[in-house]
Amino acid sequence: MRIGGIETRSIWLEPDGWSVGIFDQTVLPWRVERVTLRSATDATHAIASMQTRGAPLIGAVAAYGLALALREDGSDAALASAYGTLLAARPTAVNLKWALDAVSADVRPLPPAQRADAAYRRAAAICDEDVAINQAIGRNALPLIEAIAARKRDGAPVNILTHCNAGWLATVDLGTATAPIYLAHDRGIPVHVFVDETRPRNQGALLTAFELGQHGVPHTVIADNAGGHLMQHGQVDMVIVGTDRTTGHGDVCNKIGTYLKALAAKDNGVPFYVALPSPTLDFSLSDGIAEIPIEQRSAAEVTTMTGRTTSGAVESITIVPDGSPVANHAFDVTPARLVTGLITERGVIAASREALERAFPDHPSRQQARVAAE
Amino acid sequence: MRIGGIETRSIWLEPDGWSVGIFDQTVLPWRVERVTLRSATDATHAIASMQTRGAPLIGAVAAYGLALALREDGSDAALASAYGTLLAARPTAVNLKWALDAVSADVRPLPPAQRADAAYRRAAAICDEDVAINQAIGRNALPLIEAIAARKRDGAPVNILTHCNAGWLATVDLGTATAPIYLAHDRGIPVHVFVDETRPRNQGALLTAFELGQHGVPHTVIADNAGGHLMQHGQVDMVIVGTDRTTGHGDVCNKIGTYLKALAAKDNGVPFYVALPSPTLDFSLSDGIAEIPIEQRSAAEVTTMTGRTTSGAVESITIVPDGSPVANHAFDVTPARLVTGLITERGVIAASREALERAFPDHPSRQQARVAAE
Repeated sequence: MRIGGIETRSIWLEPDGWSVGIFDQTVLPWRVERVTLRSATDATHAIASMQTRGAPLIGAVAAYGLALALREDGSDAALASAYGTLLAARPTAVNLKWALDAVSADVRPLPPAQRADAAYRRAAAICDEDVAINQAIGRNALPLIEAIAARKRDGAPVNILTHCNAGWLATVDLGTATAPIYLAHDRGIPVHVFVDETRPRNQGALLTAFELGQHGVPHTVIADNAGGHLMQHGQVDMVIVGTDRTTGHGDVCNKIGTYLKALAAKDNGVPFYVALPSPTLDFSLSDGIAEIPIEQRSAAEVTTMTGRTTSGAVESITIVPDGSPVANHAFDVTPARLVTGLITERGVIAASREALERAFPDHPSRQQARVAAE
Repeated sequence: MRIGGIETRSIWLEPDGWSVGIFDQTVLPWRVERVTLRSATDATHAIASMQTRGAPLIGAVAAYGLALALREDGSDAALASAYGTLLAARPTAVNLKWALDAVSADVRPLPPAQRADAAYRRAAAICDEDVAINQAIGRNALPLIEAIAARKRDGAPVNILTHCNAGWLATVDLGTATAPIYLAHDRGIPVHVFVDETRPRNQGALLTAFELGQHGVPHTVIADNAGGHLMQHGQVDMVIVGTDRTTGHGDVCNKIGTYLKALAAKDNGVPFYVALPSPTLDFSLSDGIAEIPIEQRSAAEVTTMTGRTTSGAVESITIVPDGSPVANHAFDVTPARLVTGLITERGVIAASREALERAFPDHPSRQQARVAAE
């Protein structure tokens, strides 16, 4: 994707061939700052401080973190230590553990001196695999967008609403929910994106709007409250969101507020799609509302807001009266019945156990689910 | 209601017997500052600058504004001039014009020297009438809350979700949606209120939370995105919201985002009530979605946020990237089919033409609707 007019991924090897570059997402969109990671400690800090974020991207950073550690010391002890430190940086991130396990499995059989090279290879492969999945998601969704575009008159844009940031800043490139949008835009299909602000962390207004703007995709930032009204008035042609975890029955756990948009889409006959890379599919779960624990995050995310002051400084202000308690649920679950389709790397499929099992007979979580049931 | 421990209305006559006191709502909840209005110019400024807000309260301030003008000069010219100036302060506010017309009709037949006294009397009556309506709304809704409380175990609170500020700061006292809450709380029924932040102007987090806190009502501020999740998990017993305008068929125009909560309530079997003082009922309209024009407000309400800095100053920050366009629809329409009941000063009734006509056979807007149809 483009940032400041330059084609880039959200993670890269520096010209020295071993240190790793990322963007500091804590200062976006106000400043574009690149950070160089030279050790597992750097990588851990980047993940824990949320300089880097988004499940797929965290996995990639963690994989390179192990490579950086093994470059210094290829021993079993160094591997175990770096694994533990990196895993503790964001203990609930599924992709983080998955990436650490993948790299570890590759390097453990090797002599210490060969481990760093193998870790770099696997980290690069994890990045390429993420990009390939997102490209496939984009390609598979393209006919949905083209079909709407074909019904439009006078080149009017296809209006797509999205929630939160399932964009390229959350992945290695392209994003999941945004992949179809970028692909359509790059192919000259007129698209326009309604970007939900996405309180309380404002990843929509801050990151998705920034991404789309940098890539030149027309968009409009709206309050999270506005989407229902826009759908009532025919201003939204389709919704595409990402997912943090999707059950084997097709229930979609995603950023808090997603469920409200799915309800509005259903009520107004607007198709509601979920971009689902298969690593976030979890066949061990069925009923998302009953089974997925919803993380309660810090009250400060609701009571304070960070932005740019008139003097150009980035500052936080308090926006809730002193003494008023706050609750901050990070995710909600959209039941499968509200989902028009799941856009996966293997095609657009129904949000149902049957369709998911047919598309992903070999999914790792099915093996686990089977073992657990036995 | 109580503010700083003192019982007060949101508008009052000062001890001098003629000047008018209000709270400066532009600095709430960060500072409690009272403003004294001594002329129609003061009243106009208070309305235009949003020191005072909320349809019923604006009407009361405007009525006193005319009284202040007539106290200085009881002539027809002075009356016409003050009327015009006050009306222009918030041209779309229905209650503003209604209150100005009511006072004008009372004073016009009188000799100039008697007009000020009559205007003060009518302004006071407008205030008392607003309070009486809100008290009746509170009383009529109380059995709904009591019925839920009776089903609770061990004195668990009745959980009520509200959106925006239909509280006493928007009226002369008690509020509309909050009247049942304050009444229940004062009678010892345990209530707890989920307060939607209500982006983009944050009237929920800033004003409703402040009001409830000042009166000692337990409450929790949540992002607008959270209500659906809470309802899915049985944490909301009922929703009560206000309305800016309700059609003769029971379609409810209220703060943007209300419709999304109504959808979630329906999907989870949570009763969704609208506190409807009859002055906001409009029989001249039927289909709210098609007929009610939705005000588009300034982009700055979305792109900037005001709050308290760590140094204690009240400052605005920018929270949307430069160059990202913004849309800001102020209201949405909740179709009657999603409304469990309308809580009016004449009882809790169905959101239907039939029920509304039966309850309000004498409503002024029915006369207008009839004339228009002839």
